[in-house]
Amino acid sequence: MELLKRTVERIEGLNEDVMKECRDRVDNLIKPQGSLGKLEDLAVQMSGITGEMFPVLDNKAIIVMAADHGVCDEGVASAPQVVTVVQTYNIPKGITGVGALAAVAGADLVTVDIGVQEDLEYGDTIINKKVKYGTDNMTKGPAMTYEEAVKALETGIEVAESEIKKGRKIIGTGEMGIGNTTPSTAILSVLGEIAPEEITGIGANLDASMVENKANVIRRAIALNCPDKKDPIDVLAKVGGLDIAGMAGTMLGCAANKTPCIVDGYISTMAALIACAIEPKTKNYLVTSHFSKEKGAKTASELLGLTPMLDMNMRLGEGSGAVLVFNIIDAAINMNKAMITFQEGGIGVV
Amino acid sequence: MELLKRTVERIEGLNEDVMKECRDRVDNLIKPQGSLGKLEDLAVQMSGITGEMFPVLDNKAIIVMAADHGVCDEGVASAPQVVTVVQTYNIPKGITGVGALAAVAGADLVTVDIGVQEDLEYGDTIINKKVKYGTDNMTKGPAMTYEEAVKALETGIEVAESEIKKGRKIIGTGEMGIGNTTPSTAILSVLGEIAPEEITGIGANLDASMVENKANVIRRAIALNCPDKKDPIDVLAKVGGLDIAGMAGTMLGCAANKTPCIVDGYISTMAALIACAIEPKTKNYLVTSHFSKEKGAKTASELLGLTPMLDMNMRLGEGSGAVLVFNIIDAAINMNKAMITFQEGGIGVV
Repeated sequence: MELLKRTVERIEGLNEDVMKECRDRVDNLIKPQGSLGKLEDLAVQMSGITGEMFPVLDNKAIIVMAADHGVCDEGVASAPQVVTVVQTYNIPKGITGVGALAAVAGADLVTVDIGVQEDLEYGDTIINKKVKYGTDNMTKGPAMTYEEAVKALETGIEVAESEIKKGRKIIGTGEMGIGNTTPSTAILSVLGEIAPEEITGIGANLDASMVENKANVIRRAIALNCPDKKDPIDVLAKVGGLDIAGMAGTMLGCAANKTPCIVDGYISTMAALIACAIEPKTKNYLVTSHFSKEKGAKTASELLGLTPMLDMNMRLGEGSGAVLVFNIIDAAINMNKAMITFQEGGIGVV
Repeated sequence: MELLKRTVERIEGLNEDVMKECRDRVDNLIKPQGSLGKLEDLAVQMSGITGEMFPVLDNKAIIVMAADHGVCDEGVASAPQVVTVVQTYNIPKGITGVGALAAVAGADLVTVDIGVQEDLEYGDTIINKKVKYGTDNMTKGPAMTYEEAVKALETGIEVAESEIKKGRKIIGTGEMGIGNTTPSTAILSVLGEIAPEEITGIGANLDASMVENKANVIRRAIALNCPDKKDPIDVLAKVGGLDIAGMAGTMLGCAANKTPCIVDGYISTMAALIACAIEPKTKNYLVTSHFSKEKGAKTASELLGLTPMLDMNMRLGEGSGAVLVFNIIDAAINMNKAMITFQEGGIGVV
């Protein structure tokens, strides 16, 4: 609890002076004011986060949190649970979705076992930070204890801080955990006060009757555990997941260390909701990437209050949406750096 | 007319065999089927265009068509018309919006004077392909003659073919032409049979009364010239522009040479509508990029039948939206190349 507390206390507001200087420049670049839309906002945000007019956000990484979900016993996932292990091995090899996209973005993958249900051969490529062997089945009791949820959050903080110390200037969040749209939807249901059946989606590929079952499972888990909406760690512990907690911790760790953090899709948005409920200033450090095609995704984005840039009908997770945004952020910063102002061009404002 | 005719005759359907092979592989990559959404569709489309499973789309370029618009005399633009010339000089220097973004994408700019209202110092950086010194004011008569519209289309074809011969594997379209949302909206009004006031937007930065005037100007131009909806070249000549024609020609030239072509925003979408009206198979070779914030943009995309990927609140033009998509297309192709299939991974389909 000590690391979490200290980290949250370190999260500050953005550098308003540099943001104003940046916005002034952006408003005077040779284009109609506002005509580069979100690129302008991104440039200003990155300046506010880093305190630099033209930050160089290199040494990019996606931190992938892998964990299992005990609630899979209730038939909420279309894939067998062993796929979590298989893909946790595959991710650092670059042969899964996020890896193929990261190669193009020039980003590294940092794969973390935060709660896979079995011991792995870690080698150099998977970081062993296992908090427990998968969450417990949340229809029988809490997914984890409050202390385990704190430990998973602190694990996310530790990994983020370790990567930032190694020189990462920007981090994206990803996950691997069969069944994790179920706890994600449970969190959304609690935080948004929305009935599960309104937001429960197909996950990997469920049919209609399985989606109905999944919504029922979520309803039962919430009814049994009575998560306290006002305590995000209680929600995380009772109906959340270790991967989600790890991602939320990553976001807190990035915010405390003034490092931009990219939110991926559905599961990552729930982590962002938890992180921002723990410390609202975290939101300043987040960039959302894409609208997941999972049913509750737009609701979750609205609740977070950040509108993604990409609409790609994607719903894979792993960080596959976040990784597409690195290049757009680089473009936003270079807009500010390489474009001249009206004054520099010797012409009036158009 | 001969080049246009020959080019249109050369536009073929996509390579269905390679597309099927590609779709089969994409469907078997280690992810839930369809979970990478538009990336999957892009990979298949690029294979269909090039006939290759893993095309390398390097040597990227944005072709920027610069032209003036006589209709500026009617007070439809917020910027002075001289900005077309100023920016046509600035674009090849990389100091405007599209240049700053192209540097990050690793793309070159090809700047073409297809109808700027004065002679320029061309040097090595601006291609002189002037069809005429700006269009005529379409509220007094046609913007150009039918022959001039054909010549502008053929100019776009020539530039595209010349770049493709130099080794360009993918091309994006851009434009520079103060006032060009006015002819664009006129084209949309005619092709979509929509009243101008429903789709007329602020362009660079018009206030409400100027938008009302702009809609009136468009209505008058259409009433005077009676463009024939069934003849896209007639529409282009009477209420279009040289930049729009050049972009439409670029799209036809790309399609005839089996080269993917990225549609930018509002003005580029009208060029796409014209190109596809001339030869519907052109659409197979187009990739749309972003939803422009200009009022009629969503209507135009719907009419074209292609949904952009990015929603960035951008409305600059120049190709600034198209250039953001190069990286996403590369990511789509590498998805197909670097991800393994379930068979290769020795696991069943999830």
